Amino acid sequence: MTAPVSADVISRLKAVLGEGGWSEDAERIAPKLVEWRDRWVGQTPFLALPKTTEEVAAVVGICAEAGQPITVQGGNTGLVGGQIPKGEILLSTERLRAIRAVEPLDDVLVAEAGVTLAEVHAAAAEVRRRFPLGLASEGSATVGGFVSTNAGGTQVLRYGVARNLVLGLEAVLPNGEVWNGLKRLRKDNTGYDLKQLLIGAEGTLGVVTAAALKLHPVLGSRAVAFIGIGSPQDAIELLARAKDAAGGAVEAFELMGRLGIDFALRNIAGTRDPLPEVHPWYVLAEFASAEEGSSERAMQRLLEEGLAAGLVRDAVVAQTEGQAKALWAIRENQSPAQKPEGATWKHDVAVPVSKVPRFLEEADAAMRAFAPGCRIAAFGHVGDGNIHYDVLRPDGGSDAAHSARRDEGSRIVHDLVARLGGSISAEHGLGAMKTQEAKRYKSPVELAAQKAIRQALDPKRILNPRVLF
Amino acid sequence: MTAPVSADVISRLKAVLGEGGWSEDAERIAPKLVEWRDRWVGQTPFLALPKTTEEVAAVVGICAEAGQPITVQGGNTGLVGGQIPKGEILLSTERLRAIRAVEPLDDVLVAEAGVTLAEVHAAAAEVRRRFPLGLASEGSATVGGFVSTNAGGTQVLRYGVARNLVLGLEAVLPNGEVWNGLKRLRKDNTGYDLKQLLIGAEGTLGVVTAAALKLHPVLGSRAVAFIGIGSPQDAIELLARAKDAAGGAVEAFELMGRLGIDFALRNIAGTRDPLPEVHPWYVLAEFASAEEGSSERAMQRLLEEGLAAGLVRDAVVAQTEGQAKALWAIRENQSPAQKPEGATWKHDVAVPVSKVPRFLEEADAAMRAFAPGCRIAAFGHVGDGNIHYDVLRPDGGSDAAHSARRDEGSRIVHDLVARLGGSISAEHGLGAMKTQEAKRYKSPVELAAQKAIRQALDPKRILNPRVLF
Repeated sequence: MTAPVSADVISRLKAVLGEGGWSEDAERIAPKLVEWRDRWVGQTPFLALPKTTEEVAAVVGICAEAGQPITVQGGNTGLVGGQIPKGEILLSTERLRAIRAVEPLDDVLVAEAGVTLAEVHAAAAEVRRRFPLGLASEGSATVGGFVSTNAGGTQVLRYGVARNLVLGLEAVLPNGEVWNGLKRLRKDNTGYDLKQLLIGAEGTLGVVTAAALKLHPVLGSRAVAFIGIGSPQDAIELLARAKDAAGGAVEAFELMGRLGIDFALRNIAGTRDPLPEVHPWYVLAEFASAEEGSSERAMQRLLEEGLAAGLVRDAVVAQTEGQAKALWAIRENQSPAQKPEGATWKHDVAVPVSKVPRFLEEADAAMRAFAPGCRIAAFGHVGDGNIHYDVLRPDGGSDAAHSARRDEGSRIVHDLVARLGGSISAEHGLGAMKTQEAKRYKSPVELAAQKAIRQALDPKRILNPRVLF
Repeated sequence: MTAPVSADVISRLKAVLGEGGWSEDAERIAPKLVEWRDRWVGQTPFLALPKTTEEVAAVVGICAEAGQPITVQGGNTGLVGGQIPKGEILLSTERLRAIRAVEPLDDVLVAEAGVTLAEVHAAAAEVRRRFPLGLASEGSATVGGFVSTNAGGTQVLRYGVARNLVLGLEAVLPNGEVWNGLKRLRKDNTGYDLKQLLIGAEGTLGVVTAAALKLHPVLGSRAVAFIGIGSPQDAIELLARAKDAAGGAVEAFELMGRLGIDFALRNIAGTRDPLPEVHPWYVLAEFASAEEGSSERAMQRLLEEGLAAGLVRDAVVAQTEGQAKALWAIRENQSPAQKPEGATWKHDVAVPVSKVPRFLEEADAAMRAFAPGCRIAAFGHVGDGNIHYDVLRPDGGSDAAHSARRDEGSRIVHDLVARLGGSISAEHGLGAMKTQEAKRYKSPVELAAQKAIRQALDPKRILNPRVLF
């Protein structure tokens, strides 16, 4: 818990923010103190609601001078507690709401930090463009948040993570100065790329106030298939063939175990099993391209080849937009469908793509030995080597008993990931939850470099002090 | 000029490098002191030729302790003098030659710093993959160099710059410690992305010793067209249509002015004008995709649409690989074709794509006023907003007189670029040549942040001391 905020700092903040620019009202603040899975509950004496970049700069400047820590919050959809204050001042970007520019000829959209991802999608669609970052939380997740956490999602295989979709940034640095790096350039080699340093820094090196986002063409030809397969190894081999069949047109390649399908059938109303028989694993594949029919043809080629090679056991290709949506809903409901099943140890890990089968095999063996009867729901972006590896309590078992062993169980998973050259946080970041754990897996050389950079830019460690190193 | 190197440092370096690991032979060293355009000639008393990452670490460690500056050199193809020592120790990566791994299932190739780009291409092709970074200097340019300078080239429009093609790095930090960040992951959100900080840092934050590079599928369907157009504005509008027609399949979209074609016809043996009539501007467009015939069809659609809209005046589509090569040769010879024409002020600038026409118009007017009779050859990656804007002396004019006014002339171009929100070095970096100039266009806030980061990692400023801020 951070030290109390001085009355002087609070009165200075009120003066620069003006009416409507702050709150001390517990009811107004309450929703911002709870993370959506209820795993983190925070406290703050003061909510700053700056409406402009200059106001953000004023807030950070006052706090920098006073050594007053700040936690920054966007849409409060983070999964690792980075956005929840523990006594610090809470700076919300919710009033930084402008879409400053949409330039179809440049394929650029400039939005302030508090604009939601769904709003970015809508604004891009208005000019027949697309911002290909897809998150389940897109109605709430904001520009500042997805940039600061370098969000991933389901389209990374083709378009990359958030850092590949940002052309420029505007941010308030930890000393309260505004850095205007809001360029709209695809190439700029004039010194260190501060933008790339801020992306994924989880708000510790600056408060992102606006971003120039890279738009892509809308693709008219789209094919979505739900494919029953025998094993994760078959998924990897099918992926290599998909890249061949579709060239650069593989939009998504998602893996799901059967248990996750069962959970969806049981717990998500309206879910239907897309295939008549049961298979141990499934792939949801999507291709998209410009020429009418070309994605459908590529998918057809892939499935025929996959059947002939024994990689595909059965498959269905969506014939309508509605069917495609229904197939995607099964994937998107993998996490919500677990909720009624009880306590879970969740992991967001990545390994090199070729090592996904070995990871799953060894992790399963270790989990079954460590927690007999546990239920393992593994799914995720296999095309990126990114698996959401969730270990649920035994059927009918005790939530409390399972939760009590979370840290120990996760340690086993994370140690395995590290041995395979992987990452213990592929797309969710470290936040307050995983920072300590991550220290185990970073070399002293890397930790020292990370600390030196932070110390150089935020010597008083005022921005998101409990996050990162 | 840097202070002389102490005898003690040299004897310690010899001891760790062993026989064949260093040279003081002026003849051996000479080719590394001259930049290919002969604009920079350097000096060094000692060439270090480490063969392993550990030897690089030992060299940097000794120099760090002694405060001895080092200049790092890869294939010596840099265009801004960053690789040329002025009395520092010269560290060449030429003996770091291993391709450590090629993993088609991961789409990853791990190569040491001294491997050339052409060798990377060949090793990828052996497993039916492609590393889509194309540079004219690929036979000499090395992994360490193209990573450290965040190289661009002709395929950026689709695949991004070098920073989008690197999954992991190994580097020796300025304190002589080895940072092993050689991950093969597509997603890893566990702290600051040191890799992204080192890419484009021009060797000032660490000596890159190896990189994990991202491979892409080989695409069987390819269409190359040479298109006569009326103006840069038409190029921009045609580009937007190309993205629509081809979806994500636009590999390259290059602009050339007529004067550059004339230079190629005059000065490059075997060049033929691809179109029967003369046009003021040309676009070289390439599409590539997986499905047989699909790129050709997309190109056909684009050209028909472009003709109907008055954007295309004439066009030829390559019917054979040989024709495609001949069309590309015209583009690749734009720079060599200038050489016999005399002194040139060269610029490597970027502006937002939509501002390319305005940049060209205003820059031309300014240049013609400043240097009456000058000849302007503009060409480049218009799809990235990146123009190589070259101002040649008047026909029959004096080279010396033209060269003498270079700085003044370039200042006019750079000021215009800055007004348009552009970059004075899109893909070549700053090196020793453009660092001072770049300071004019960076805000004090940005310069301070850049300096703080360097100070944090290299407090004695031993790595490439004359480069960057």
